[in-house]
Amino acid sequence: MSSALAGELRSILGDDGVLDRQLELHVYGKDSGITRGEPSVVAFPESTEDVVAVVKAAKRHGVSVVARGSGTGLAGGAVPLEPSLILALTRMNEIEVVDVENRSAWVGPGVINLDLSNHTYSDGLHFAPDPSSQSVCTIGGNIANNAGGLHCLSEGNTVNHVLALEVVTADGDVIELGGPAPDPIGLDLRAVMVGSEGTLGIVTRALIKLTPNPTAARTLLMSFRSVEDAAKTVSDVIAAGVIPAALEMMDRLMTVAVERFIDAGFPTDAEAVLLAEVSGHEAAVEAEAEIIRAIADDNNAIEARVASDAKERQRMWLGRKSAFGAIAQMNPDYYLHDTVVPRTKLVEMMRNIYEIAERHQITMLNVFHAGDGNLHPLMSFDASEEGVIERVKAAADELLAICVALGGSLSGEHGIGLEKRDSMGLVFNEYDLDAQARISEAFDPDGSMNPNKVLPSGSRCFDFGRPIPEGTWV
Amino acid sequence: MSSALAGELRSILGDDGVLDRQLELHVYGKDSGITRGEPSVVAFPESTEDVVAVVKAAKRHGVSVVARGSGTGLAGGAVPLEPSLILALTRMNEIEVVDVENRSAWVGPGVINLDLSNHTYSDGLHFAPDPSSQSVCTIGGNIANNAGGLHCLSEGNTVNHVLALEVVTADGDVIELGGPAPDPIGLDLRAVMVGSEGTLGIVTRALIKLTPNPTAARTLLMSFRSVEDAAKTVSDVIAAGVIPAALEMMDRLMTVAVERFIDAGFPTDAEAVLLAEVSGHEAAVEAEAEIIRAIADDNNAIEARVASDAKERQRMWLGRKSAFGAIAQMNPDYYLHDTVVPRTKLVEMMRNIYEIAERHQITMLNVFHAGDGNLHPLMSFDASEEGVIERVKAAADELLAICVALGGSLSGEHGIGLEKRDSMGLVFNEYDLDAQARISEAFDPDGSMNPNKVLPSGSRCFDFGRPIPEGTWV
Repeated sequence: MSSALAGELRSILGDDGVLDRQLELHVYGKDSGITRGEPSVVAFPESTEDVVAVVKAAKRHGVSVVARGSGTGLAGGAVPLEPSLILALTRMNEIEVVDVENRSAWVGPGVINLDLSNHTYSDGLHFAPDPSSQSVCTIGGNIANNAGGLHCLSEGNTVNHVLALEVVTADGDVIELGGPAPDPIGLDLRAVMVGSEGTLGIVTRALIKLTPNPTAARTLLMSFRSVEDAAKTVSDVIAAGVIPAALEMMDRLMTVAVERFIDAGFPTDAEAVLLAEVSGHEAAVEAEAEIIRAIADDNNAIEARVASDAKERQRMWLGRKSAFGAIAQMNPDYYLHDTVVPRTKLVEMMRNIYEIAERHQITMLNVFHAGDGNLHPLMSFDASEEGVIERVKAAADELLAICVALGGSLSGEHGIGLEKRDSMGLVFNEYDLDAQARISEAFDPDGSMNPNKVLPSGSRCFDFGRPIPEGTWV
Repeated sequence: MSSALAGELRSILGDDGVLDRQLELHVYGKDSGITRGEPSVVAFPESTEDVVAVVKAAKRHGVSVVARGSGTGLAGGAVPLEPSLILALTRMNEIEVVDVENRSAWVGPGVINLDLSNHTYSDGLHFAPDPSSQSVCTIGGNIANNAGGLHCLSEGNTVNHVLALEVVTADGDVIELGGPAPDPIGLDLRAVMVGSEGTLGIVTRALIKLTPNPTAARTLLMSFRSVEDAAKTVSDVIAAGVIPAALEMMDRLMTVAVERFIDAGFPTDAEAVLLAEVSGHEAAVEAEAEIIRAIADDNNAIEARVASDAKERQRMWLGRKSAFGAIAQMNPDYYLHDTVVPRTKLVEMMRNIYEIAERHQITMLNVFHAGDGNLHPLMSFDASEEGVIERVKAAADELLAICVALGGSLSGEHGIGLEKRDSMGLVFNEYDLDAQARISEAFDPDGSMNPNKVLPSGSRCFDFGRPIPEGTWV
């Protein structure tokens, strides 16, 4: 079956557009998380027409379709759970039209996040979502996961930056969702598609809303003797009516790791470091930076300083963005968690994180978007160590349950994928999940688009009834 | 059938909670638009449980359900097109919990828009969407129509201010969509529900995101010798990186009407007047107001002045908000249109508007949200005049077609309802509409929730097949 499909795909895409040798396939069996699957064939479409033809071919062969960008996802969203066709969208990377006056651009799903911002920089515009992976992740992947980033505190996640989507449905029809106007008319399927992780259809083009580059910005580095003081500073800043463009926290283990890796100028004796950035009008950022500094002082900051020039500012942010590189030096493996608590529960959650880390004997470092309560506890380990995976998994499950119990959520920006699929019941009851499953079924009646992701098996009374493969982690 | 249903409703809601006498029903047969229908019975639930019981009773009796707030809608969304149960949600008007720290509040759908902002004012918070009807319209209605308002240029429409929704489905199940965290997990049905105009289910509670009150604001009044100069000022302001909280345009006919009605201090000899408001930090608003003033001067403004105090500022906005009252004095009837063009097409669209008005011999005034290209051509007429309705309708259809041809949209904030249902094909093709119809059917398989609204008949291959009543306008 699979080789017949591969042959058909070759007739559509050419030899260069299809991979089906075992070794080649292996690379496409996982994302940046820790689950692995095995694809049957990988297709590289270069146009919407290619995607239509490939989806129809897969349908004829009864093979499910899993869309994939750069594979930087962490939740297993791009991992095939059954022999599937991987639709690798990286060649659909054209920035078609930039409409500077209306601040928008039609782009292909394979455009690299940072490439778009670089492309529009001289027009004074950029794509606001800036995940840490922005130099490699694709905009299609950002859309699939409703990705966030450092600057999403003031600008919002990807859904706020997508005006319209061209989508190839499970039947191979081409539909357009949303439109250039800010208020979508009819049923807002654009927002359902964003964050649906390839389960509803394949995004083949996106009309992106571009954001003006800030005219002025200030970055502050603040250090504290306790996580409590840092968290209180976060709450007080927001309460003062200042919404920084970014407001990031690192704990001591993390700043130590970063300073071992590069010289970012982070203090290694402070229990917590905050990085804040305000942007906008020159006069406003000056005043807002001063407000933040004063609040940090009131909360017993060891130091609270504004970067004196662009070079120092870049150095501070380089430190933050090097966190994952720093971790990679510590141990061969890491597991990066992504959960959300109300901002007011940050201190309580951090205490829980440290308690769980200690009890499970796991090195857990923290670097996260404090402004919106989006935590990223990062567990560093060596997977070859006996029993460590089980401990990491137990710790991750406990973290998730506590976040939800504190009024939080399963995920802030990395998606549900496979990793958190079976935890959806912590947040939604059977009726809530049934409503989502009905929508999924309305788009994809055969369950052929990235099957068994996002929604737990059994969400629907008359469920698709596919078995969940054993042996996958989470 | 209907009287049996009324009896059953009385046993659920009490005598006080049901209306079914002809004269009483008449009031609930229309919204603020110009289409009329005839309801069978009106129910006033006071709780989610009431709504569940009423929806289940209607289902047993095979009667469709049309939700209604204050009836200020303009697109016929709350008009029953077949003998229906009107679910009047005005008694579900409790502001349950205001969480000041996390800036959110659970409210009932019957809460009046302005009541919520007044309630939270002393906590430094407000509900950002501020339609002109905000002193009477309900938050449930705002959600149903994804309402906008003067200040939605910087803050976005209602969908940006709703975190979670409790919904009673067509089956009478209670589901929760979205959640307190800013990034919705799973399929984002919250956004589909917002703007679905009661066709997918009944919103019984909403978790509203509250916005900090601005610490400082400046209002500017600018007048111009031509609409072109005013429109150019709008484009230049946005291009300069200033996003005003509000940016409103009025043409001469409108300012004259307003000045006849109240003394707002608007010049009556200018072809166009712009009102702009900037809000935020004191230093920023001072600087931004100066930028706007200078841009207006560069575009040949007759005058461009900043309100010197709160009193003058209020007077300017009172003038803008009195536009519809002023119109009511001119003629017994008016038809307020709501369309969108890209900001860069404002001048071209205004020329078309004047040409259409002249050709159809209709008094057409303009007051609109210039910043986001959301036009509100307002036709003033006396419906008793022979043939005028036909001319108004023809003009409205032409306006809509031109807006779409210029890259715009059918509606900016008033919804699709009945009025623009049959124009959806201007924007969406059959596949797009089929996707929306599938979602509608997934939520409401029997087509019993506000039937025959939003989506044109025949959107779906296996359409519900209900006849569209004749004799309704539009």
